[in-house]
Amino acid sequence: MKTIAVIGGDKRQIRLIELLLHNGYKVLSAGFEKAERLPEKTHRASATDAAQAAEIIIFPLPVSQDMCTIHAPYSRYEIGIESLAKSIGEGKIIFGGRIKKDLFGKNRIYDYYEREEFQISNAIATAEGAIEVASRELDTTLFGTKTLVAGYGRIGKLLAKILDAYGADVTVSARKHEDFIWIKALGYRSIDTRKLADHVAEYDLIINTVPFRIFNESVLNAVKNGVLLIDLASRPGGVDFDYAESKNIRFISALALPGKTAPVTAGEIIYETIDHILKEEFE
Amino acid sequence: MKTIAVIGGDKRQIRLIELLLHNGYKVLSAGFEKAERLPEKTHRASATDAAQAAEIIIFPLPVSQDMCTIHAPYSRYEIGIESLAKSIGEGKIIFGGRIKKDLFGKNRIYDYYEREEFQISNAIATAEGAIEVASRELDTTLFGTKTLVAGYGRIGKLLAKILDAYGADVTVSARKHEDFIWIKALGYRSIDTRKLADHVAEYDLIINTVPFRIFNESVLNAVKNGVLLIDLASRPGGVDFDYAESKNIRFISALALPGKTAPVTAGEIIYETIDHILKEEFE
Amino acid sequence: MKTIAVIGGDKRQIRLIELLLHNGYKVLSAGFEKAERLPEKTHRASATDAAQAAEIIIFPLPVSQDMCTIHAPYSRYEIGIESLAKSIGEGKIIFGGRIKKDLFGKNRIYDYYEREEFQISNAIATAEGAIEVASRELDTTLFGTKTLVAGYGRIGKLLAKILDAYGADVTVSARKHEDFIWIKALGYRSIDTRKLADHVAEYDLIINTVPFRIFNESVLNAVKNGVLLIDLASRPGGVDFDYAESKNIRFISALALPGKTAPVTAGEIIYETIDHILKEEFE
Amino acid sequence: MKTIAVIGGDKRQIRLIELLLHNGYKVLSAGFEKAERLPEKTHRASATDAAQAAEIIIFPLPVSQDMCTIHAPYSRYEIGIESLAKSIGEGKIIFGGRIKKDLFGKNRIYDYYEREEFQISNAIATAEGAIEVASRELDTTLFGTKTLVAGYGRIGKLLAKILDAYGADVTVSARKHEDFIWIKALGYRSIDTRKLADHVAEYDLIINTVPFRIFNESVLNAVKNGVLLIDLASRPGGVDFDYAESKNIRFISALALPGKTAPVTAGEIIYETIDHILKEEFE
Repeated sequence: MKTIAVIGGDKRQIRLIELLLHNGYKVLSAGFEKAERLPEKTHRASATDAAQAAEIIIFPLPVSQDMCTIHAPYSRYEIGIESLAKSIGEGKIIFGGRIKKDLFGKNRIYDYYEREEFQISNAIATAEGAIEVASRELDTTLFGTKTLVAGYGRIGKLLAKILDAYGADVTVSARKHEDFIWIKALGYRSIDTRKLADHVAEYDLIINTVPFRIFNESVLNAVKNGVLLIDLASRPGGVDFDYAESKNIRFISALALPGKTAPVTAGEIIYETIDHILKEEFE
Repeated sequence: MKTIAVIGGDKRQIRLIELLLHNGYKVLSAGFEKAERLPEKTHRASATDAAQAAEIIIFPLPVSQDMCTIHAPYSRYEIGIESLAKSIGEGKIIFGGRIKKDLFGKNRIYDYYEREEFQISNAIATAEGAIEVASRELDTTLFGTKTLVAGYGRIGKLLAKILDAYGADVTVSARKHEDFIWIKALGYRSIDTRKLADHVAEYDLIINTVPFRIFNESVLNAVKNGVLLIDLASRPGGVDFDYAESKNIRFISALALPGKTAPVTAGEIIYETIDHILKEEFE
Repeated sequence: MKTIAVIGGDKRQIRLIELLLHNGYKVLSAGFEKAERLPEKTHRASATDAAQAAEIIIFPLPVSQDMCTIHAPYSRYEIGIESLAKSIGEGKIIFGGRIKKDLFGKNRIYDYYEREEFQISNAIATAEGAIEVASRELDTTLFGTKTLVAGYGRIGKLLAKILDAYGADVTVSARKHEDFIWIKALGYRSIDTRKLADHVAEYDLIINTVPFRIFNESVLNAVKNGVLLIDLASRPGGVDFDYAESKNIRFISALALPGKTAPVTAGEIIYETIDHILKEEFE
Repeated sequence: MKTIAVIGGDKRQIRLIELLLHNGYKVLSAGFEKAERLPEKTHRASATDAAQAAEIIIFPLPVSQDMCTIHAPYSRYEIGIESLAKSIGEGKIIFGGRIKKDLFGKNRIYDYYEREEFQISNAIATAEGAIEVASRELDTTLFGTKTLVAGYGRIGKLLAKILDAYGADVTVSARKHEDFIWIKALGYRSIDTRKLADHVAEYDLIINTVPFRIFNESVLNAVKNGVLLIDLASRPGGVDFDYAESKNIRFISALALPGKTAPVTAGEIIYETIDHILKEEFE
């Protein structure tokens, strides 16, 4: 029976802890003092004690938002990364989302966020969350709404598919020749991401998935009055936020949606990804 | 230039008024004193004055919830139906949703709610609203969620299609032999509505569209612990509410969704249906 | 162990006989002398003997093409309907597709072709067959082909769905307001069947499902040079055949597709429909 | 006005010639003596003369099947590759499908078959052709048919999508973890290609897209009696042909489908790919 420390995190980690317990691990938790509901069998400990006692340590996604302390919204106390890292010692297996590997010295570090399987599952939860946001914010149906999905990566593909089933009028922007053919093959319209400014005025709903500032001043000057613009790209995001605000464009930066809109699934995704890594590397 | 009275209603009527003005009607409004935003060109009047001055009168959907007063959430005053009906006189064209036709004597009465085109558009908005509710309430993704759609009418068909695109594991319940074949033809599983109790334990999300109390004690006894049950059927609904509550089943009665989740579209649907009726009957 | 006579028919009936034997019936067959392969346990008889000995008689779909003889392409001999009908006697259960009920006197006659469940399954097989024909005849891919499906009944709905998945550019013609909304809701374009002549020039592939002569001279005058026109409507069909020929329009009248392109499935559909009728009526 | 030589090929090249003429090129053709129909403006020449006179030379896909002569089914004469290559000289632009680049010395050689855009369009035509073959060969509908698509590349993705719309019961085999998630996300079942032998007995239709001999003796020993097995993989293909034959398995090797089932589209794909290359490289 292996001991795992779960240090920091939100509702996702609570689901993760349930699954770890269910699968026979002993779980030490740190940073969940304010959580309403933690599985009974969880052992509470300080971050340092948990880290030292466990063979496997799991940090949240992201490990830290401020680069100083562990992301731990349920914690009463700050958990400093550097001091914790020093106390861990050597020879452990450490998991984290977007983890800085060099901080943790002579341990085996795995970033579950980088795994393709995590990315896909996370994209599914993100696409669903984005549509929930759009559906909530729009006073119209998605059916018949002229919609632009900027970017044809994982999230863009899923968004296009679901929005199409809603009967939205879906256009996808992309840059590569082969993407244009796939987009057409799947029944959507396509435009060139490099020519957004020429086309953007047509859309009532725009969802950006591209992690570059493609919604710059000239593109934002061209959007339709009353458009809803949802940005899914990680900071600094794909939209010139200040300019959008100065133009009174209805703009929502929807980050970390899976943790907010589907925390139970998001916790399961983390569990499964870690489980796969453990099986591949240590069995 | 015809004069239309819009008496009572919510955000949908505000969109309706915009469209009426845009299409050249003179609009008298009554019951919108508390509305934040009404198009400038709207003439405000008392319900009686508006009804008397106009050739066409539009009531909301439903005309009344209590059978006594017009449904008018933005009104400062109660608008009694009977007294208003008496003051209308004869020879007018009256539209209402679920309107009691006998109240309005020698006028031409049309129930826009009964029109097939209204029903379909309303079903689209209802299905979207139901999925928005499910997406918001669930801590999991819809993807992979074992979902039962009870009933294979307009709303059921649309729900199945959209949920399928989400990657939900969709089962539809129906009663007719030909529905089972269609359900299979479209790629879903089917069960017999008369045998709900035998199958209902499998599902994490159940959306009911059947306007009969099919979720009775024996079916509710069989549902999975933690299920989310959304009832879209009009009052008295398809779920034994008291029993569901006594069993602590997570239950949401989602009525009149289009007016809540897509009021602009819902107003447009009312406008278009009335426009079609006017064209068919009076041109 | 009941005795069933299967009199006349094609490959479908051979599959039907297999299923009847498999389900415990004794089967007398008539009119299959030239069939290569008949299940071993089938008893061969003359049509008259078979009809007299059996409690249940199954005729093909259609029972007759010439109104005189049973449709029996595998038969060495003509089987006259009237003389056979006289020899049957009374009190039997008779099944046939498009059967003339008055010919068979004091027996219980069921037309399996009229059953909704048969119609849907048959529509599935017809739609598949039509797409097979289109795919074979066209020198282009269906992907990207401007396609008109005339009529939005069972077959039209299925054709639109499958062709859409191919990436064809699908337009459906219909007449009813509510159909237009559904067609749009499902993501296709729609045109008014009454205005075919105005729109028909756009399409490279046209599949007609409407059993009225809607492709008349004026519509045929408007079709694109090189169009492929497939007519699925039963005789006399939806296309003015002579005029189409005189104009050298590429025209295929594709009748009775299920029996040709999916005879095994078509035989199973007949079996299941008959089985349902027997259960509903006699159990 | 540039001169292009089209040397060898089938119906696809005839469509290609049309498009070249339509776009202002002078076309010299060689190897089409037996073709029924060649655009009027085409200049006929011997292969050597055409190659010497033109600035651009287009060979078919594949350039050669026997590694000795150009693939030219409409030619009266053999066109030897080596002698032709020697006569070409230097400084020309040469296109071919699966072309051996080292044969053509000091010329600029482009393999249009290698281009991603060609591959996708070709995959679309291949998937359609495969379904046409399946639909023609099966005596059942695709609807309800238990179907295995082996491989989740371009063709596998398209096959799964279209077969799903037919209502086939679709399973896709893959090897990568992320593919399994995508396959599930799109609503199909998945199995592991490495465990084909364990699962293959379930399927009535199997379409292989994997260019490795995965249908070996042990897998073929496990297939269902009566299965239809279609192999789309290029030679040597994914199926142990001799063993399949010895076991009387119904097996179709469907190679070069686009040229056979959609030659016009296939010619257009070649044209467009060449046009893109010319624009990218020489404008």
